[in-house]
Amino acid sequence: MILTVTMNPSIDVSYPLKQFKLDTMNRIADASKTAGGKGLNVSRVLSQLKAPLIATGVVGGHFGDYLTSQLDDDGIPHNFSKITGETRSCIAILHEGSQTEILESGPEVSKEEREKFIENFEQLLEDTNFVTISGSLPKGIANDFYSVLIEKAAQAGVKVLLDTSGDTLKTSIQSSFKPYLIKPNETEIADLLARDLQSEEELINALDDDLFHGIEWIVVTLGADGALVKKGEDYYRVHIPVINVVNPVGSGDSTIAGLAYALSENKTSEEVMKTGMVTGMLNTQEEKTGFINPDHFDSLYEKVKVEKL
Amino acid sequence: MILTVTMNPSIDVSYPLKQFKLDTMNRIADASKTAGGKGLNVSRVLSQLKAPLIATGVVGGHFGDYLTSQLDDDGIPHNFSKITGETRSCIAILHEGSQTEILESGPEVSKEEREKFIENFEQLLEDTNFVTISGSLPKGIANDFYSVLIEKAAQAGVKVLLDTSGDTLKTSIQSSFKPYLIKPNETEIADLLARDLQSEEELINALDDDLFHGIEWIVVTLGADGALVKKGEDYYRVHIPVINVVNPVGSGDSTIAGLAYALSENKTSEEVMKTGMVTGMLNTQEEKTGFINPDHFDSLYEKVKVEKL
Repeated sequence: MILTVTMNPSIDVSYPLKQFKLDTMNRIADASKTAGGKGLNVSRVLSQLKAPLIATGVVGGHFGDYLTSQLDDDGIPHNFSKITGETRSCIAILHEGSQTEILESGPEVSKEEREKFIENFEQLLEDTNFVTISGSLPKGIANDFYSVLIEKAAQAGVKVLLDTSGDTLKTSIQSSFKPYLIKPNETEIADLLARDLQSEEELINALDDDLFHGIEWIVVTLGADGALVKKGEDYYRVHIPVINVVNPVGSGDSTIAGLAYALSENKTSEEVMKTGMVTGMLNTQEEKTGFINPDHFDSLYEKVKVEKL
Repeated sequence: MILTVTMNPSIDVSYPLKQFKLDTMNRIADASKTAGGKGLNVSRVLSQLKAPLIATGVVGGHFGDYLTSQLDDDGIPHNFSKITGETRSCIAILHEGSQTEILESGPEVSKEEREKFIENFEQLLEDTNFVTISGSLPKGIANDFYSVLIEKAAQAGVKVLLDTSGDTLKTSIQSSFKPYLIKPNETEIADLLARDLQSEEELINALDDDLFHGIEWIVVTLGADGALVKKGEDYYRVHIPVINVVNPVGSGDSTIAGLAYALSENKTSEEVMKTGMVTGMLNTQEEKTGFINPDHFDSLYEKVKVEKL
């Protein structure tokens, strides 16, 4: 089973408006409100891939209850810890070809709530082969928190796919317990090392840095250019076909879902890379965020090429 | 006891932003989410006046539960009917001195839910002296609905203060069961009669129209100019002092609360008018919508003058 972790989920509210008028009233007939946050995008795509999963994290208040009721509606199994603070909302106003977002920071998690989550997490690990951890940490939780989860997972013999950024990513990969897989983009690699990366060669050298030592999989996503992957001591270049992008938001999460799914199915390294690329691409072909049409999987899969460097 | 009716309540979400950037992300640290809708503003001000009240209407889903939990936190007694649809949210983005609003239309109310509300309403009437009805009707409920409530109230010997607008107001006052009090502004009177009103004399003539026959109190609010009031066959001009306005939103609701409170306390007509004006003014002196500081009541009350015409 795959366990997905979302520590700061949100109710994603979408307001489509023909025209967005400032300093006045905008009436909206068809708001949509779905369970959001990067880890829940991963969960939804795993569910669409028919992978056995449980979504966990923290939710709070009536907004949290709404969020889990949406997961129920989508048939996504979940086991969240309850916190006192109300789960946040994130607003996307879709207007005149633009997307204006208002992102609430979310509730604070207390020390007791943090401990309660870890207890629940440890129990859930018992039935788990892979864990995905996605997104930012809520207020009240320090940057080393994901390292704690990775350590607990290691003790249970469970591998962790970590998709976060900035200081949280840096702290997590500097810890003695390493994630099994990370999925940074080129900019994040450059930021982590505080150096410019001008060529594929420089990128490959960067991944050889001590900072990344002990991480089995590093999938550097390159947008339309596919990915550069380090697996153990081997480097791969993954080439993807040109596709028509409808909405790219959530593609990284969809890639994580594909990688976790293929790993949990004991696929070969090449198959893992191809699956992650295809689920990412499938997400870009849909209006909805963190959503794929598995019917188009096979035709795209054939067009992804893995080149060993 | 005063019964307040809110058929399309909302969670009022306020996002204060120093700068509102379009087509990108705006992160917000301090969102506020309160129980809103005109009838709940009336309820809050009645509660601040220490008037015995019950708030009713329809709420639905987890968002409805959040709304009633906010009423509990504010100490506002309530008895809402439950509906299937989720209670709406209304967003106010406060930025650069502007207020940009996004108003959801709210859930549809089914025929069965409408009947269930009316049953609950009839039971609540047993302990009620005055009813206030505020705001617009939800989807699925026809414009004659408030007339039905006014008829039920009349049968129970209960008087209704009606604060709505447009076709719903027109339908309500054309019915054979009249509200006891309405509070239109000049524009609404002009719209109802489809004629221009250029002077106080024309306004007085307008209130003499057959359309308003049988309505005991017509309080025409004139903003900073106070009000023109028709009570029975008598006309009054209410003069208010010049005050510093912080936020005028919700003043009409606060006026309704003051009028209902004074009527329920068997005050004289002059006292009723003065109380309504003062609570309206008190609301404009606060940041919050539908909120007053009763400590300033007496000093303003002295400065309101009622002139019989």
